[in-house]
Amino acid sequence: MSTGKAVRESLSEYSEVALPNDANGLGAVLGGKVMHLVDLAGAMAAIRHARKPVVTAAVDSLHFIHPVRIGELIVLRSSVNRVFRTSMEVGVHVETENLLTGKKRHTCSAYLTFVALDETGRPSPVIPVVPETEDEKRRYQEAGKRREYRLTPRKGLRP
Amino acid sequence: MSTGKAVRESLSEYSEVALPNDANGLGAVLGGKVMHLVDLAGAMAAIRHARKPVVTAAVDSLHFIHPVRIGELIVLRSSVNRVFRTSMEVGVHVETENLLTGKKRHTCSAYLTFVALDETGRPSPVIPVVPETEDEKRRYQEAGKRREYRLTPRKGLRP
Amino acid sequence: MSTGKAVRESLSEYSEVALPNDANGLGAVLGGKVMHLVDLAGAMAAIRHARKPVVTAAVDSLHFIHPVRIGELIVLRSSVNRVFRTSMEVGVHVETENLLTGKKRHTCSAYLTFVALDETGRPSPVIPVVPETEDEKRRYQEAGKRREYRLTPRKGLRP
Amino acid sequence: MSTGKAVRESLSEYSEVALPNDANGLGAVLGGKVMHLVDLAGAMAAIRHARKPVVTAAVDSLHFIHPVRIGELIVLRSSVNRVFRTSMEVGVHVETENLLTGKKRHTCSAYLTFVALDETGRPSPVIPVVPETEDEKRRYQEAGKRREYRLTPRKGLRP
Amino acid sequence: MSTGKAVRESLSEYSEVALPNDANGLGAVLGGKVMHLVDLAGAMAAIRHARKPVVTAAVDSLHFIHPVRIGELIVLRSSVNRVFRTSMEVGVHVETENLLTGKKRHTCSAYLTFVALDETGRPSPVIPVVPETEDEKRRYQEAGKRREYRLTPRKGLRP
Amino acid sequence: MSTGKAVRESLSEYSEVALPNDANGLGAVLGGKVMHLVDLAGAMAAIRHARKPVVTAAVDSLHFIHPVRIGELIVLRSSVNRVFRTSMEVGVHVETENLLTGKKRHTCSAYLTFVALDETGRPSPVIPVVPETEDEKRRYQEAGKRREYRLTPRKGLRP
Repeated sequence: MSTGKAVRESLSEYSEVALPNDANGLGAVLGGKVMHLVDLAGAMAAIRHARKPVVTAAVDSLHFIHPVRIGELIVLRSSVNRVFRTSMEVGVHVETENLLTGKKRHTCSAYLTFVALDETGRPSPVIPVVPETEDEKRRYQEAGKRREYRLTPRKGLRP
Repeated sequence: MSTGKAVRESLSEYSEVALPNDANGLGAVLGGKVMHLVDLAGAMAAIRHARKPVVTAAVDSLHFIHPVRIGELIVLRSSVNRVFRTSMEVGVHVETENLLTGKKRHTCSAYLTFVALDETGRPSPVIPVVPETEDEKRRYQEAGKRREYRLTPRKGLRP
Repeated sequence: MSTGKAVRESLSEYSEVALPNDANGLGAVLGGKVMHLVDLAGAMAAIRHARKPVVTAAVDSLHFIHPVRIGELIVLRSSVNRVFRTSMEVGVHVETENLLTGKKRHTCSAYLTFVALDETGRPSPVIPVVPETEDEKRRYQEAGKRREYRLTPRKGLRP
Repeated sequence: MSTGKAVRESLSEYSEVALPNDANGLGAVLGGKVMHLVDLAGAMAAIRHARKPVVTAAVDSLHFIHPVRIGELIVLRSSVNRVFRTSMEVGVHVETENLLTGKKRHTCSAYLTFVALDETGRPSPVIPVVPETEDEKRRYQEAGKRREYRLTPRKGLRP
Repeated sequence: MSTGKAVRESLSEYSEVALPNDANGLGAVLGGKVMHLVDLAGAMAAIRHARKPVVTAAVDSLHFIHPVRIGELIVLRSSVNRVFRTSMEVGVHVETENLLTGKKRHTCSAYLTFVALDETGRPSPVIPVVPETEDEKRRYQEAGKRREYRLTPRKGLRP
Repeated sequence: MSTGKAVRESLSEYSEVALPNDANGLGAVLGGKVMHLVDLAGAMAAIRHARKPVVTAAVDSLHFIHPVRIGELIVLRSSVNRVFRTSMEVGVHVETENLLTGKKRHTCSAYLTFVALDETGRPSPVIPVVPETEDEKRRYQEAGKRREYRLTPRKGLRP
């Protein structure tokens, strides 16, 4: 009996070239543009796994390792780490490639939580994800710890 | 002798109406659109305080309290909570207003870290922020705690 | 008995950073971009007062005091000056701020007329605006004169 | 000796289909979108006549005869009516076409004033326009009257 | 009895100024931007002739004679060459104008095939086009040859 | 001695979700939007191979197998088939995925010719591509035939 779906079915890749307008006329591409793409790539993996519309419920803290320049290619890879009944943790890995030199850099990584919706817009159950490789199993376990951590109240430390 | 600037000089308000394209053809506005605006509003407060170009260094975890609908007005208020030599913690409060009914809802809040840059693109010192009201003093203190918290390594819990 | 709404309930602020694409590759930001924002900010005040959808009926002559540069922040403040049964005069004040220097300039001011619509798209009555401060009372009176002036035919002088 | 250029050399046509995003999720296309296009079409005629960069100095009052719907084609025709040393009056005629029925409607007309710039960004002389047809001569004369009218102070009636 | 419509009723002109964002931060405007406009201008002619929604079925090979620069005006002229029951061949001529010098260059030409749709989204008959001038008659005949050519299978030469 | 680069180094994937604005208010996504993405994905493969800026020189005829709907994911895969001194033939395969059902369809395929440029904007030699797999060798050979075919004049059949 099928009780879940393999992680690889949610694997998504999304790319975009940073354009002049993404830089707000002040040089480097704003982090918000990258965050926008992180959410888009994350939603793609979540929808592909759940085959339902989703909304973003939360984004864990993220740290930008280097700024992105106009003309660079932003490459985002995402997959569902674990399902929690109607929500999913999705991991997104962001890399920036200078197309003229081929140099690639790790830009940031993020964990997002998406909730699947039914036709009436209410949270709707999602089929579990089945980790198969060692890497997938590690991410599955860590997703559980992160969830606990997320649900612990932290007075003054969280918005 | 002036050794800092009042918080209110960085106070910024940014508004945008959610458009059809922000919803990706799947109903509710994607969280990534809101995150994009959060970064924009945060950068405005940071630039207004530092009067220098800035880059986003980090975003603390954020949680969406409700989805945003097309046609609603997204109102963002931001201010600098504290300066750490070349970086600043900025708080952003996001509210959504249904223009036809006047109903307002708290959508999310976020803490971002921006780094000020000099003309060569290197981190550049920022004048301290001087908290004056009780509320500003509380945020100033909490910003210190959040910074400690941010700098504590958390294996497997952070990207 | 409440027979109107205070002006301050319609007070709206809208901000946008001028981006490279707003300049059409020819240097300064085109006036049309500013006019677009003027209409948006004006509509926000009108909708907030009427709590109904609105359409722009007319824009009085406007004069640009200085050109806007890419990277500058355009800040628009709007409020309803007076209601004429189904239409409203809205005043919009536009200021441009150089974020890196903090220098602000008055860019232009505009008076727009919006018509409120019911569900069938027909003009629909709007609750009167009640001027309270001296400034609001002056604007209320002048709005009446401008309306007369607008309705006077001027052969060859108006499109 | 050439002392001017024919009006027809500045004649410009600009078209755009009204898209979902132009309507702000509230039904009809906002007047500001049309004003944006009016300025763009006007600038095209002014640049074509002056062969120099231009900035918008002023827009005379304009009145929208009917709202524009998403999917309709907005067609703008513009030409330079008269030159005043470094500035030009441009007339813009806006028509909306329902592409599926072929029905066309006059949407609005506008008079704009553009100033030509030299390489340093300062106002720069423009070659006169030479009206040839009866219609061009009438517009030339009326442009002179409108200019006088524009320059007459009108306390409280103008922003 | 009317058995067709004159070519001139489908004649369409579309213009757009190439903006910074169209150049992907790598200098010249990408050919894809021009192709986008070619399709838009072609669809306008097709819809104007058929007065029905259309979809693009095919684009013949096209060759760019020169690159387009930011700030240049792209002018597209299109008309229906011939109708084949539910489909139409549309020709699009693209010219680029440097607005500051007035210099115009032929950028590319294209032949597109559009299919008209009824309300259910199925192919729907289109009234024939009646060529009147010598030029229109030549295009009508050539459109027939191109159609034959298009329908001939060419193993390995076509995608 | 290295005399070329493997095809796989140019392999590129680009994805985009079709948004409301891509449909021009008339239902299905216009072919021009897809053509825009085809060019973008093709340019990515060409730049990755040449590590130089490129311009689109030509696009072979392309045929849309089915229309694309708003909300569907457009996935483009591209690679360099063969190098001809300063130009490259790139093949682009376009697939559309309905994210909610997972159904994928082949939308169209295209062959584009890009020219590499040096810093002065002149055509610049490109390192040859070395086909390794059977599939790559077949494409390499066919690219040669298509080039011959492209260079054969066809009176009246080509724009």
